Amino acid sequence: MSDVRGPVDGLVVPRFAGPPTFARLPRLDEVVGCDLAIVGIPFDSGTTYRPGARFGPAAIRQGSKLLRPYNPAQDFSPFNTTQVADAGDIACNPFHIDEAIAQIDTGVDALLSAVRGVLALGGDHTIALPMLRAVRRHFGPVALVHFDAHLDTWNTYFGAPYTHGTPFRRATEEGLLLDDRGVHVGIRGPLYAASDIDDDRGLGFDIVRCTEFDTVALGVIVERIRARVGDSPVYVSVDIDVLDPAYAPATGTPEAGGLSSRELLALLRGLRGLRLVSADIVEVAPAYDHAEITAIAAAHIAYELLTDMALQKL
Amino acid sequence: MSDVRGPVDGLVVPRFAGPPTFARLPRLDEVVGCDLAIVGIPFDSGTTYRPGARFGPAAIRQGSKLLRPYNPAQDFSPFNTTQVADAGDIACNPFHIDEAIAQIDTGVDALLSAVRGVLALGGDHTIALPMLRAVRRHFGPVALVHFDAHLDTWNTYFGAPYTHGTPFRRATEEGLLLDDRGVHVGIRGPLYAASDIDDDRGLGFDIVRCTEFDTVALGVIVERIRARVGDSPVYVSVDIDVLDPAYAPATGTPEAGGLSSRELLALLRGLRGLRLVSADIVEVAPAYDHAEITAIAAAHIAYELLTDMALQKL
Amino acid sequence: MSDVRGPVDGLVVPRFAGPPTFARLPRLDEVVGCDLAIVGIPFDSGTTYRPGARFGPAAIRQGSKLLRPYNPAQDFSPFNTTQVADAGDIACNPFHIDEAIAQIDTGVDALLSAVRGVLALGGDHTIALPMLRAVRRHFGPVALVHFDAHLDTWNTYFGAPYTHGTPFRRATEEGLLLDDRGVHVGIRGPLYAASDIDDDRGLGFDIVRCTEFDTVALGVIVERIRARVGDSPVYVSVDIDVLDPAYAPATGTPEAGGLSSRELLALLRGLRGLRLVSADIVEVAPAYDHAEITAIAAAHIAYELLTDMALQKL
Amino acid sequence: MSDVRGPVDGLVVPRFAGPPTFARLPRLDEVVGCDLAIVGIPFDSGTTYRPGARFGPAAIRQGSKLLRPYNPAQDFSPFNTTQVADAGDIACNPFHIDEAIAQIDTGVDALLSAVRGVLALGGDHTIALPMLRAVRRHFGPVALVHFDAHLDTWNTYFGAPYTHGTPFRRATEEGLLLDDRGVHVGIRGPLYAASDIDDDRGLGFDIVRCTEFDTVALGVIVERIRARVGDSPVYVSVDIDVLDPAYAPATGTPEAGGLSSRELLALLRGLRGLRLVSADIVEVAPAYDHAEITAIAAAHIAYELLTDMALQKL
Amino acid sequence: MSDVRGPVDGLVVPRFAGPPTFARLPRLDEVVGCDLAIVGIPFDSGTTYRPGARFGPAAIRQGSKLLRPYNPAQDFSPFNTTQVADAGDIACNPFHIDEAIAQIDTGVDALLSAVRGVLALGGDHTIALPMLRAVRRHFGPVALVHFDAHLDTWNTYFGAPYTHGTPFRRATEEGLLLDDRGVHVGIRGPLYAASDIDDDRGLGFDIVRCTEFDTVALGVIVERIRARVGDSPVYVSVDIDVLDPAYAPATGTPEAGGLSSRELLALLRGLRGLRLVSADIVEVAPAYDHAEITAIAAAHIAYELLTDMALQKL
Amino acid sequence: MSDVRGPVDGLVVPRFAGPPTFARLPRLDEVVGCDLAIVGIPFDSGTTYRPGARFGPAAIRQGSKLLRPYNPAQDFSPFNTTQVADAGDIACNPFHIDEAIAQIDTGVDALLSAVRGVLALGGDHTIALPMLRAVRRHFGPVALVHFDAHLDTWNTYFGAPYTHGTPFRRATEEGLLLDDRGVHVGIRGPLYAASDIDDDRGLGFDIVRCTEFDTVALGVIVERIRARVGDSPVYVSVDIDVLDPAYAPATGTPEAGGLSSRELLALLRGLRGLRLVSADIVEVAPAYDHAEITAIAAAHIAYELLTDMALQKL
Repeated sequence: MSDVRGPVDGLVVPRFAGPPTFARLPRLDEVVGCDLAIVGIPFDSGTTYRPGARFGPAAIRQGSKLLRPYNPAQDFSPFNTTQVADAGDIACNPFHIDEAIAQIDTGVDALLSAVRGVLALGGDHTIALPMLRAVRRHFGPVALVHFDAHLDTWNTYFGAPYTHGTPFRRATEEGLLLDDRGVHVGIRGPLYAASDIDDDRGLGFDIVRCTEFDTVALGVIVERIRARVGDSPVYVSVDIDVLDPAYAPATGTPEAGGLSSRELLALLRGLRGLRLVSADIVEVAPAYDHAEITAIAAAHIAYELLTDMALQKL
Repeated sequence: MSDVRGPVDGLVVPRFAGPPTFARLPRLDEVVGCDLAIVGIPFDSGTTYRPGARFGPAAIRQGSKLLRPYNPAQDFSPFNTTQVADAGDIACNPFHIDEAIAQIDTGVDALLSAVRGVLALGGDHTIALPMLRAVRRHFGPVALVHFDAHLDTWNTYFGAPYTHGTPFRRATEEGLLLDDRGVHVGIRGPLYAASDIDDDRGLGFDIVRCTEFDTVALGVIVERIRARVGDSPVYVSVDIDVLDPAYAPATGTPEAGGLSSRELLALLRGLRGLRLVSADIVEVAPAYDHAEITAIAAAHIAYELLTDMALQKL
Repeated sequence: MSDVRGPVDGLVVPRFAGPPTFARLPRLDEVVGCDLAIVGIPFDSGTTYRPGARFGPAAIRQGSKLLRPYNPAQDFSPFNTTQVADAGDIACNPFHIDEAIAQIDTGVDALLSAVRGVLALGGDHTIALPMLRAVRRHFGPVALVHFDAHLDTWNTYFGAPYTHGTPFRRATEEGLLLDDRGVHVGIRGPLYAASDIDDDRGLGFDIVRCTEFDTVALGVIVERIRARVGDSPVYVSVDIDVLDPAYAPATGTPEAGGLSSRELLALLRGLRGLRLVSADIVEVAPAYDHAEITAIAAAHIAYELLTDMALQKL
Repeated sequence: MSDVRGPVDGLVVPRFAGPPTFARLPRLDEVVGCDLAIVGIPFDSGTTYRPGARFGPAAIRQGSKLLRPYNPAQDFSPFNTTQVADAGDIACNPFHIDEAIAQIDTGVDALLSAVRGVLALGGDHTIALPMLRAVRRHFGPVALVHFDAHLDTWNTYFGAPYTHGTPFRRATEEGLLLDDRGVHVGIRGPLYAASDIDDDRGLGFDIVRCTEFDTVALGVIVERIRARVGDSPVYVSVDIDVLDPAYAPATGTPEAGGLSSRELLALLRGLRGLRLVSADIVEVAPAYDHAEITAIAAAHIAYELLTDMALQKL
Repeated sequence: MSDVRGPVDGLVVPRFAGPPTFARLPRLDEVVGCDLAIVGIPFDSGTTYRPGARFGPAAIRQGSKLLRPYNPAQDFSPFNTTQVADAGDIACNPFHIDEAIAQIDTGVDALLSAVRGVLALGGDHTIALPMLRAVRRHFGPVALVHFDAHLDTWNTYFGAPYTHGTPFRRATEEGLLLDDRGVHVGIRGPLYAASDIDDDRGLGFDIVRCTEFDTVALGVIVERIRARVGDSPVYVSVDIDVLDPAYAPATGTPEAGGLSSRELLALLRGLRGLRLVSADIVEVAPAYDHAEITAIAAAHIAYELLTDMALQKL
Repeated sequence: MSDVRGPVDGLVVPRFAGPPTFARLPRLDEVVGCDLAIVGIPFDSGTTYRPGARFGPAAIRQGSKLLRPYNPAQDFSPFNTTQVADAGDIACNPFHIDEAIAQIDTGVDALLSAVRGVLALGGDHTIALPMLRAVRRHFGPVALVHFDAHLDTWNTYFGAPYTHGTPFRRATEEGLLLDDRGVHVGIRGPLYAASDIDDDRGLGFDIVRCTEFDTVALGVIVERIRARVGDSPVYVSVDIDVLDPAYAPATGTPEAGGLSSRELLALLRGLRGLRLVSADIVEVAPAYDHAEITAIAAAHIAYELLTDMALQKL
């Protein structure tokens, strides 16, 4: 499609120069007709340990400057035939979680009225709930593919129902997710009690523990995920802490023993062909990053998700 | 007073070992009768920019391990005749500012029922409000000596009345401060409007701008502060960002052009003899620290404040 | 002037969100009529020691997010009556110094055709030469006020005439500077030979050494600078290494014993009322920064320069 | 057992607050009857290259704050039925290795008179010798399972018999270890001579080289370790440098090509059911850490070891 | 050979002391007759993104201090029978790429006239071209085994034919490489277009993508490389960015999803017995390193390459 | 003197290349006849808190690469008429303080038999004692000018008489210092007891406290130091922690409220003309450095000391 406007050319404008958008793509206001929107959601007031994911969108954008337009791992150029654009940040209230959730919902809803899919750059995992609320309004309930060290289906923290540890319990309660189509991948680390897992299962989720990667081939895990979601509309939520802290030091609740970035990227490529309607990458807290390694990993994750989403158009 | 229990002896237990209390002092539950309590208030949900002061108390305690018992700058050993102890942390809700403020108020109030002064280790500047509420209950309204780059007398942020930018407006409105006895020291950096200063003056504060230190001798500024507070009971609040970012990189809203640690320590020593009833040192966000320089500066600030407070007993 | 568009309101859009322009000001393409333009010049191929100033513009913009619209030190709101906008980056060839210099010259020249002053965010000090070439075309030869640890009037490095150590010799040779109106401020650190100073004086520069700040009051130095430039049009060039490495670790050729940020900001405020036609702040190499302290100092420097430039309109 | 006192509840006291003990467990002096004690041994004067493990205990405790009470990988809650407590640090002389070794021996011996197992947080690897001396007194000679990049069976360094490179040669000479029951796991990196390996074998150790992990399944290596130690009492010593520097940058003698944290945790879980009598985790040098990734890995290692030790009680 | 002079003895001179040569080996001017020379080439003016590899040689030497003389993974002591020496740095012009390439060519050519193999420590990948020019003069065209995330066979950047992204296209055009004997290993990350791969194949290279490591055993990949080069003289070029950023943060164009250091070291050991005539390790940019992990990985890579090269003499 | 060999020319060999000696000066074995020797003493086993000064010599040498041959602040080129050379490191036993002290004494004594002055790069402050022993043998007892936050005249730590906190008490006891000619400059921070100061005075030292710099001009302090030492032979010992942690984060026992690097350099220049016979700069612990700012400050300190020492020859 000849009207598609891609990233600024890295052979003309050096990668350390140029627009500070994701992958140096055009801004949403610069294009006429947009298929996929990237949006920053700098909110981290739902964090239980190390805060700072409010600076995640800026860091991921900075870490995305080396992304080039052709994805050889999927043999596809996601920005060539699909108009992808950066919609900037959704401003939300750091002092009032409920208000912020409403602001995010409104902002994403408006985007989904104009484009066919949104990729959110968090922010902490609280943002997945308003994302799912908006998504449901446009696509109905969805299957959830959730990459994370943690289940994020706890009930409350300090009496607060909306935090970065509770979005998927709330989403289930609100009917935002399809029954028995959800799966957590990469779960590990200590929990509060054995009942945490039972409760999660009771909400209808399947769990692929991180320890399974020691003995089960990546391809088998991919098939398990694909079988789980089938041909449902799918929402993918990636908490960067699914990676081992060696790969993603810059996050709020790191757990040793995680995935490598190569494993995660392979899993994401394995989602190709599924009906991805929207996605997020959350919990990048740049104050804890070093040499941008977390931000770069997040940018590559976003790039594979965008490729998966762009491929659906074909 | 022979019953006073001081820090663990650094010639017997190496400074990198031993109890993780402030200055390796005893815990509050280890002493019988306590004069001055140090308490951590790990709350940072009132932060407008870089969060992370929730880890401040732990960092300041770690940075205090090199403090020895004799203060040569004031020729006094604050832990010899005054029982100082570490009361641990006040647990407060990170997801509900109002509840957290109530928890802090309750916790500090309980301490002030048992000791004659409290030194709080923040946490963001929001904590000064419940500190002042508890202080007023025990000492009546106080004079405020406030070291900071910022006025912290804004009205609201995003509609929120209780944040790290508003404590001293709220305190004035609530009658916690003595009229015309308050002074901000070290103010600098851009503001929203010229009216910010007028509003602040309207609340009854005096302002010593950081630029004045270029031409006015330290001793003159000390005298100005002393004259301002007179013989009133005094609350001292030190936002670590009163120091230049070179001296205190680990803070949430840094402003270039600040004080050196030598200047600030000299000012604090200049408060000797005033009626210090309680104090805080806030806004240390250790994720941004390097080689503990901010934490060490904060520990020295706390040490001078404790010396000032201990001297009153004599 | 009611049409002036200022920064995004920090009480509506949190400072960690919003546009990634300098001080969250509008982009040049968003305003109708612009008085002062900020432009990034991400070029560092003229660096002799630690490279990386190519990432300077992005870092300074990120470090400028806390700047608010009212400058209390000068009692003036530079963005209220003057339209200031961010013109983005000038793309220039990292592999060909001559071509890059031409690209910068062209880019700045185009800006100066549309606005009355440009503030450049470097990049290394090489960029001062094409800045001065463009400036001369619009304003004629200028007086130079140059803050730096180094003279930058060497002749060649490895046979190269255009590097970050030579711009002001070239500028003198090309007639871009007014005779006997130039002054270097903050010079310190070892040189190649005593003749370096003589050569510099031979080019018509005055030198205020950093050691003079030990015994001469800031106000006296300000007067010396003002007397030097008189009512000539003035170009101000600030190499961040004029600050001590404690204040500005993130630079390419650091020298111990430098200015504090408070001293430098006072000097820049002392330029108020001079005929500043354009300016630069260079040599911020963010890979060496910590907690953004260098970037924040640079942002404050830029803010004072913009205030000085905006004040002239009155 | 209803009297067991576990960690402070993370849903009541935020994880960034609360007691600075390992996993926020009670102190030894707070419990009546203790099964397993954690003790810090801040000694690093036996280090040959990068020192700083003296700060290891404080860092591992800080890195352990996110540990929750239920271990899903072993389906067991180690703190529920076993009383685990933090015994603080053993103070030892940094200037006299022999005296320090005696102090550690005395301290651990006293603990083992009161509890049934000790987990030591180092400190450098020198501490394994006095640990083993005390362990032998209580349990007789033990099988050694030693995770490390290095053999640590050198004879002397600069004439010194007791350093972090020699503990297991000394232990063998002193009869602290069972014959032919010892195994080193993860050995890699250059040695002084081929005879280093022969000498080590001559002392009765088996070696699982790190390169074997490229071709041998984790389960097979686990079985090899289990077969080696059989039903002997076992001491486990974990040098954090068995992990690759990507996973554990904060250590004194890092070697490329190491284990991932996921591999090491799987190995430790594979020790389940063995007769673990005591253990150590050593060589964490926090000055070289980033975002606590080494400390967090060490905390997870300690948690799996505690689970293994607690399971034996059943 | 009894005259061979090895590294300074680590049991006599502590590893943190002693000569700052690679692995504390003798300098070239200290030995009579040298077999293999290590040379630093501190040049990074061909870098497209993060510069700083000019400090690579110093960092790799510092990171090599822990290397001991016996390589157990290859059961060989490379410094015992082969005289290896450190030839210092080749000085080259940072401001003129063509001149620098000529200086490197001259310097390496002189070395190859005196020794039988050179291992270069970069510097950016630009240096591979003059290395190959000199190598061809002494050994004829060679097979290339190239470990890298990137193909480095682009044509030009900003019109520049000689950069760190183009050396192997230039080398092919200049006839420096044997036809159909070259292989890239570890390729990953986005490209400009699908034609990048076709163009590379057109130049006669085989590509082992990084994603293949997910499903193909290391031994199979080793055999594929060995079959590719056969018994030709081989030049090995290692761009440190072939490692994942977790293992090698300190590089200029990092891509997520890379090799582990254990995988890369296994591959390099798999080259044993091939006719390695010279080699390089490039793109270490220490400003982005943490705790020397990249420098240490590079030192181990160099050590395996030296072992491979020394083994050929037998 | 035409035979003097100076540093490698920075206009020919880039500063990031070339020999890793101090200031790129020749090695001692490269010159015929040497006036002043620089020697590294990588010993830190006398450290009471943060270790790591064993890496100080390497870091200071790396930080000295930007030093050029002409010192404008003293209008003198110290390397032009005086042969200065780098003597490498003295290897000393990290596990035996007494043996290390003997090794240092022997090493320095040998140097002083060949040159007229030695500048030592530490290492921790323990090294000052063997330096002074060797100095006394060649010059008799000396006046001590000691820049430090700490007195370093404690008696013992944990029973150890030789540590970094005791050298000047031992030196006094051993008659290495002239009576009533010693002065400590920059003393600050808490002490164990008031008697620490009395004890120090009893040993014959004068103390210039850091707080005095707030009210006394630098020139007056310089005169006080000069009057103290008169025309005696002088030994200058600089503990880098005399600087504020903002200027020198990389040290073992940092204390807030210190000198700026500009103040310290001015003091050192004030020693011009005194009879400096040898000197040291100690306690640089690079693991805690950032962007080399401490190492660069130390290099500048060393440069001023060398200038002072070279000037005496005239």
